[in-house]
Amino acid sequence: MSKSVPDKYAETTVSSQPIFQGKVISLQVDTVTLPNGQTATREIVKHPGAVAVLALVDDRLLVVEQYRKPMDKTLIEIPAGKLEPGEDPVEAAQRELEEETGYRCKTLKPLCSFYTSPGFADELLYIYVADELEKGRAQLDEDEFLDCMSITLEQAQQYIREGRIGDAKTITAVYAWQLYKLTGGF
Amino acid sequence: MSKSVPDKYAETTVSSQPIFQGKVISLQVDTVTLPNGQTATREIVKHPGAVAVLALVDDRLLVVEQYRKPMDKTLIEIPAGKLEPGEDPVEAAQRELEEETGYRCKTLKPLCSFYTSPGFADELLYIYVADELEKGRAQLDEDEFLDCMSITLEQAQQYIREGRIGDAKTITAVYAWQLYKLTGGF
Repeated sequence: MSKSVPDKYAETTVSSQPIFQGKVISLQVDTVTLPNGQTATREIVKHPGAVAVLALVDDRLLVVEQYRKPMDKTLIEIPAGKLEPGEDPVEAAQRELEEETGYRCKTLKPLCSFYTSPGFADELLYIYVADELEKGRAQLDEDEFLDCMSITLEQAQQYIREGRIGDAKTITAVYAWQLYKLTGGF
Repeated sequence: MSKSVPDKYAETTVSSQPIFQGKVISLQVDTVTLPNGQTATREIVKHPGAVAVLALVDDRLLVVEQYRKPMDKTLIEIPAGKLEPGEDPVEAAQRELEEETGYRCKTLKPLCSFYTSPGFADELLYIYVADELEKGRAQLDEDEFLDCMSITLEQAQQYIREGRIGDAKTITAVYAWQLYKLTGGF
């Protein structure tokens, strides 16, 4: 995404204090000068970015059910994964789809991309629509435990009401799927 | 959201190391036992949760343009803000809407709620649809700098293409708005 407007409210970094460097995220606290000349601190999580795939097989959405430690809860989500440093998002999306669901796809079309939580994190998530799917074999990472299934739009909407589907990328995918059914295009 | 399925892949916490306690977020690294008996670490950001408002005035969406330090970039977003500890999300949404746009609303209808990034953060964001809007006066926080404007659906879609709109809650709101125009209901 390019900078298309001048950042008239841009904050100038006075100093940046590294707090933590983990396997997935890092955390820093920046001291900034505000447009009014005052200073403030900003708690910033750096994340390598992620990809997710909206994949339909016979009008059913491929999803995975997995435990998420931050919420201590199992969620049903579209297949997704972190980007490796420097990795092409399309290749990452194809890899994650095949690892988690066993399905290979020939083409991936960009649906949208978004910052998941722009107030405190720089994570950018790319969602692709998979086309021409063919069944292969799932190969999960050693520390990855999940169940793959396919669900109808009605099931997806029911799972949203029940809170079993409840993350940004999957809610977005379900809205896009609804629109697709109404308009015929992603 | 309730736990509706048994967490058969649940991870057991062995230990939890607090790393950082900030004004907005905190960070901890948990050591967990995986379903296969091995151990792993989980980097977890705790966040108080947030609210956002989809507010239409004469078929135009109220948005705010503001600088976001994590990306060093200005984004156009629907009005939003963090929850104060123990705060009712509906009251928070009414407060943020009025502070940022000057509009008061009598009723707020839940649109959806989602975890913004379930892999590393517990942030839950509630989106409401505002109804019966009346113009008041914006009152920004002392360290809040933003411009409020209203845009058409076509502008919103153009801004998404240009990357000026590019966060999870606003993309979701624009999809919901498109669906509303096609089906007549949120």
